[in-house]
Amino acid sequence: MSSTTTNPRSPHRVVIIGSGFGGLFAARALRKARDVKITLVSATTHHLFQPLLYQVATGILSEGLIAPATREVLARQENVEVVFGKVTDIDLARRTVTAKALDETQTYDYDSLIVAAGAGQSYFGNDEFARHAPGMKSIDDALELRGRIFGVFELAELAAAAGRADDVRKLMTFVVVGAGPTGVEMAGQISELSRRTLRRDFRNIDPTSARIILLDAAPAVLSAFGDRLGNKATERLKKMGVEVELGAKVVGVDATGIEVEDAGGAHRRIDAICKVWAAGVSASPLGKQLAEQSGAQLDRAGRIKVEDDLTLPGHPEVFVVGDMISLKDYPGVAQLAIQGGRYAARAIRRRLSGEKPQGPFEYFDKGSMATISRFSAVASIGKLRFSGFVAWVLWLGVHLVYIIGFKSRVTTLLHWAVAFLGRARGERTSTEQQIFARLALERLGDDFTPSVNMGVREDQRDPA
Amino acid sequence: MSSTTTNPRSPHRVVIIGSGFGGLFAARALRKARDVKITLVSATTHHLFQPLLYQVATGILSEGLIAPATREVLARQENVEVVFGKVTDIDLARRTVTAKALDETQTYDYDSLIVAAGAGQSYFGNDEFARHAPGMKSIDDALELRGRIFGVFELAELAAAAGRADDVRKLMTFVVVGAGPTGVEMAGQISELSRRTLRRDFRNIDPTSARIILLDAAPAVLSAFGDRLGNKATERLKKMGVEVELGAKVVGVDATGIEVEDAGGAHRRIDAICKVWAAGVSASPLGKQLAEQSGAQLDRAGRIKVEDDLTLPGHPEVFVVGDMISLKDYPGVAQLAIQGGRYAARAIRRRLSGEKPQGPFEYFDKGSMATISRFSAVASIGKLRFSGFVAWVLWLGVHLVYIIGFKSRVTTLLHWAVAFLGRARGERTSTEQQIFARLALERLGDDFTPSVNMGVREDQRDPA
Repeated sequence: MSSTTTNPRSPHRVVIIGSGFGGLFAARALRKARDVKITLVSATTHHLFQPLLYQVATGILSEGLIAPATREVLARQENVEVVFGKVTDIDLARRTVTAKALDETQTYDYDSLIVAAGAGQSYFGNDEFARHAPGMKSIDDALELRGRIFGVFELAELAAAAGRADDVRKLMTFVVVGAGPTGVEMAGQISELSRRTLRRDFRNIDPTSARIILLDAAPAVLSAFGDRLGNKATERLKKMGVEVELGAKVVGVDATGIEVEDAGGAHRRIDAICKVWAAGVSASPLGKQLAEQSGAQLDRAGRIKVEDDLTLPGHPEVFVVGDMISLKDYPGVAQLAIQGGRYAARAIRRRLSGEKPQGPFEYFDKGSMATISRFSAVASIGKLRFSGFVAWVLWLGVHLVYIIGFKSRVTTLLHWAVAFLGRARGERTSTEQQIFARLALERLGDDFTPSVNMGVREDQRDPA
Repeated sequence: MSSTTTNPRSPHRVVIIGSGFGGLFAARALRKARDVKITLVSATTHHLFQPLLYQVATGILSEGLIAPATREVLARQENVEVVFGKVTDIDLARRTVTAKALDETQTYDYDSLIVAAGAGQSYFGNDEFARHAPGMKSIDDALELRGRIFGVFELAELAAAAGRADDVRKLMTFVVVGAGPTGVEMAGQISELSRRTLRRDFRNIDPTSARIILLDAAPAVLSAFGDRLGNKATERLKKMGVEVELGAKVVGVDATGIEVEDAGGAHRRIDAICKVWAAGVSASPLGKQLAEQSGAQLDRAGRIKVEDDLTLPGHPEVFVVGDMISLKDYPGVAQLAIQGGRYAARAIRRRLSGEKPQGPFEYFDKGSMATISRFSAVASIGKLRFSGFVAWVLWLGVHLVYIIGFKSRVTTLLHWAVAFLGRARGERTSTEQQIFARLALERLGDDFTPSVNMGVREDQRDPA
């Protein structure tokens, strides 16, 4: 159809699914693209800076600092429309995406599609663990855990005053499942909370005596960082009072503890009210839909084997980025999503301007980092390995660069200064809702149905 | 009983009920009292800086800034033990206080008691309004309202895209019931949100066209501030696009609107999804217990007619302070609680040291203030009346002084600088939980049971 002056050529419609690193950076990379109309659909109204989620869960940062409203971030980019809705269907033949917000259903046509729906927590087929051991994937998770972590100390104080030593022990035992970066960071922060932040706050319990157990079925801590840094991290964690138990597989989770199967096959129980699940991820179930319609293959974590230009086999108009892809063993980290989102955006721009396509997508490994405590981290950058203070300064710099917005950066820095130099945690407030959900869970066990969404989201359960 | 060297005289036991202004300032004023053992019992784990609650509800401040952990605030005061629990019973004859945290019940003996349990929202006998029109009394309320306020704009955007103009109108109409300081502040902030913060954020709706209605059954805005300031405030609100409707009594509240009876007796309906209740307060039901056991009188709001030294008639060992007292028409403001708490602490110290009692409690009116918008407030201090920018600067200074903790002050100032000079709101994140509670409430109406505690707490309902 030829264009006329009164009826200009209709713009190229790009639909982006997801407001995480992949989706947001794809949208931004299209900001100068003319004749493009972008619809960014997301099940949350915020962009989540997931690498700092553990700092919300442990009272260092407020949720607003790591989860700005997506439409605020993109407000001035006039070619983007941000839509609140959970994508339920992708139709590759009709080139439509259908999203739902309760009973409101909308369908969006696309010329190009970027799927960046990320991954949820995986309980490896044991979704019933979720209510007793929340994951670390969403703001809901982090606030739920914040309430639980500070809450068990409150309950322990009451139990100690009543002379119930056994309850005190259960309440002051924390189990973190999964010794990847998130698990290591959580265990380290819970240790700092108990050893520094809360040290003087109680009269009947000694918070510094809290047990913190970091468990993993694998034989190493931070296995992606290599032996040397894994050992450094383990050493540092042990100095902080964290018990590291490797080769320990979790086979049961209930209100008052977990069941562990050790490497030899023996079973044992750890009594603990507060459990954190930082063990596995499974890609968005949208991956399954894409695979079924395109014939693409899925790996065990539900990730799609994409072409080397991040497109879906047989569908050059559909890009998949971030945690949803299975390609050359690239790790599921923020940088993979950022680079993937930008690559997809560039590919669309080149097509529209008639340029020749880019070469295949190559993940540029900017390195991996994990903080263990204040002033101590491990970092792996290219062939270089850093640990201790140097790694921590690197961590600080890199995270400040990627936090969105000037004010968030300044405020975050201020919160960090106080949290790291002093002993206070500025964001430990629990709502009444959280306190009672928590209490009931602990006291009433399985008779209690939590009103709070804990752990995996329904749409992100392990596609067993 | 005479003391011996190995068995020193047992300390004077002070129980304080409540962690608000009254309870916290009473505890602090006893910090130098020797031979005093204080137990502060509270149903929340935080101290709430209630005058800034509206800033949490409208995304300016995080909850941590206005609700620090009570035990953190009092950590270094070694004569205080902070206990989490809701007081269910006071026994004046046995001198005991019983508190409950789910199924954990503890009883505390006292020699002196300070009751500072505050007030909850009152729906004037219509507690069923609460689920559709949350109050403004707790962190739960503020976070619930934050989710609703930002949420209706999201829903309006979807409804507008689908061409449902009628739904858009309902979603973009806000009703604030009660034209006291909290109502005025909420209406002013919702106006700023719609006119400034969200102005560029949407593509299908124009947020600046949102209707904001401030209703009161009384004939004046800010009646406690006098006619001149009330008129100034009304004028300013109208300039900001707030519709002020006086002599309008709310007789019904449901999921999609409210029923109003006007001064003439005529009924009319206002369609609005987002309603805020800032109308009435009723004192803690503990007042009723104290009255029944002591023969003291209660006023209509459930407040106790105390002696002029703030003690309960016939019980010189029991002090009642803050929102729970009815004395010489003193207003239910933070300063009354602070001064009452300090007065009670001083009285206890004087008794213990054998000094003669203080004179009767006299409330020193340091003035009242309400912000209307950035750079504009009204303030009444002694015989002086201020409005506009001067009043706003006073407001800023006074509130910074009373925020607890150096970091909170610095951070709050930074948040304010950004919110007032720019247009951003740093804390507008909604959890999935909040979004779905909200959506369901709107869509499913009365078939839906909210999982979030909305409005009045069960223990603080209007004692009809």
